[in-house]
Amino acid sequence: MKILAIDTATEACSAALYLDGEITLRFRVESRGHSELILPMMQELLAEAGIALVALDALAFGRGPGSFTGVRIAAGVVQGAAFGADLPVVPVSTLAALAQRRYREQGDKNLLPAYDARMHELYWGCYRIGDNGLAYSQIDDRLAHPETVDLPSGEGWVGIGSGWASYGVTLRARLGSSLAVLDGELLCSAWDIARLGAAGFEAGDALPAELALPVYLRDKVAVKQRPRL
Amino acid sequence: MKILAIDTATEACSAALYLDGEITLRFRVESRGHSELILPMMQELLAEAGIALVALDALAFGRGPGSFTGVRIAAGVVQGAAFGADLPVVPVSTLAALAQRRYREQGDKNLLPAYDARMHELYWGCYRIGDNGLAYSQIDDRLAHPETVDLPSGEGWVGIGSGWASYGVTLRARLGSSLAVLDGELLCSAWDIARLGAAGFEAGDALPAELALPVYLRDKVAVKQRPRL
Repeated sequence: MKILAIDTATEACSAALYLDGEITLRFRVESRGHSELILPMMQELLAEAGIALVALDALAFGRGPGSFTGVRIAAGVVQGAAFGADLPVVPVSTLAALAQRRYREQGDKNLLPAYDARMHELYWGCYRIGDNGLAYSQIDDRLAHPETVDLPSGEGWVGIGSGWASYGVTLRARLGSSLAVLDGELLCSAWDIARLGAAGFEAGDALPAELALPVYLRDKVAVKQRPRL
Repeated sequence: MKILAIDTATEACSAALYLDGEITLRFRVESRGHSELILPMMQELLAEAGIALVALDALAFGRGPGSFTGVRIAAGVVQGAAFGADLPVVPVSTLAALAQRRYREQGDKNLLPAYDARMHELYWGCYRIGDNGLAYSQIDDRLAHPETVDLPSGEGWVGIGSGWASYGVTLRARLGSSLAVLDGELLCSAWDIARLGAAGFEAGDALPAELALPVYLRDKVAVKQRPRL
């Protein structure tokens, strides 16, 4: 199976090529300019592997939640590339990818990924690693105030992502001893988008290009952005 | 020459196929959902004409100024599609396209296109129609407060676009008798993006996909949007 994955949902801009279980990664952290970085990353990965875009099975992308602009960049580029090369698309939760990354790097299996959503809110999810080594959501990814976030019971949860950096004091007070470890610096990577995208493709989760849409979680994000003309 | 053009910079979502001077258009006005509309429009135009994306000479898109989200959608989709089909891209000013549309529909040759940029500002430009029937900018497209906009001298200017709907009283007072006509409802159309894109392609303005970037005019737009995570 051959899948090209991209993610621009956080300040990390990354692309990864999945070739029958082997993954190659490009990863850069920049405060902006992802729309200039992402295509060359995709081109380099394909050129190095000697594979044409049309020879892939699918594209995958970090569908959100995350930066409104960043998620929009990845969705647009993947929509267009999938249209251009006639490929299906697997949207992957950026919270799932964060959980998957922590498991890949540290082996933790009970994950609470969270991104700072600004406006004193956070995007968060609750994931466990299955026997197959993949992150599975225990609840739908959601948006909440740190004071009212409905954290799970049980022990040994690992908090990851910028939501923990921004609202760690509040969240720690609420979780108490259920929280084992905290890493507020961890960023989403296309490596894990590729891994989860490949699994999603096998499970039949691929969509036609026009349905590869961002997931913002914040319903009225357009109102809080500058409105359309 | 074969060029597929798209525009999502305003509440109009449109795509147009230019085939050796003939243009076919899809055009819809929606407050949102452009990312779901634009790919099917592109697909329909190509399917009706029996042309594959890879058989085109180039893609064109409304590069801005306009809605931050809207400009981002068109840029992302065009970047990806150009990458997928290995095509060059011609970015076209959405203010030029607005001037071009007014000339196409009404024959006016001295145009002051302006979009409401919110925050009591407007994006505006100054265009004249050349002997070849194409809109040429007299100044760079710019961002200004309606009270300080540096309007041109001379007679017979036609004000078009949402900037005139929002700030018409102020602008009219400043222009005085120089303003001949005003149409604050006119929206950018991919028809004119296609026309100007074809001319730009002939003039050598096509860029590689990774350089097909939005033009926001508002430098620090990211600060005024929700910042990156």
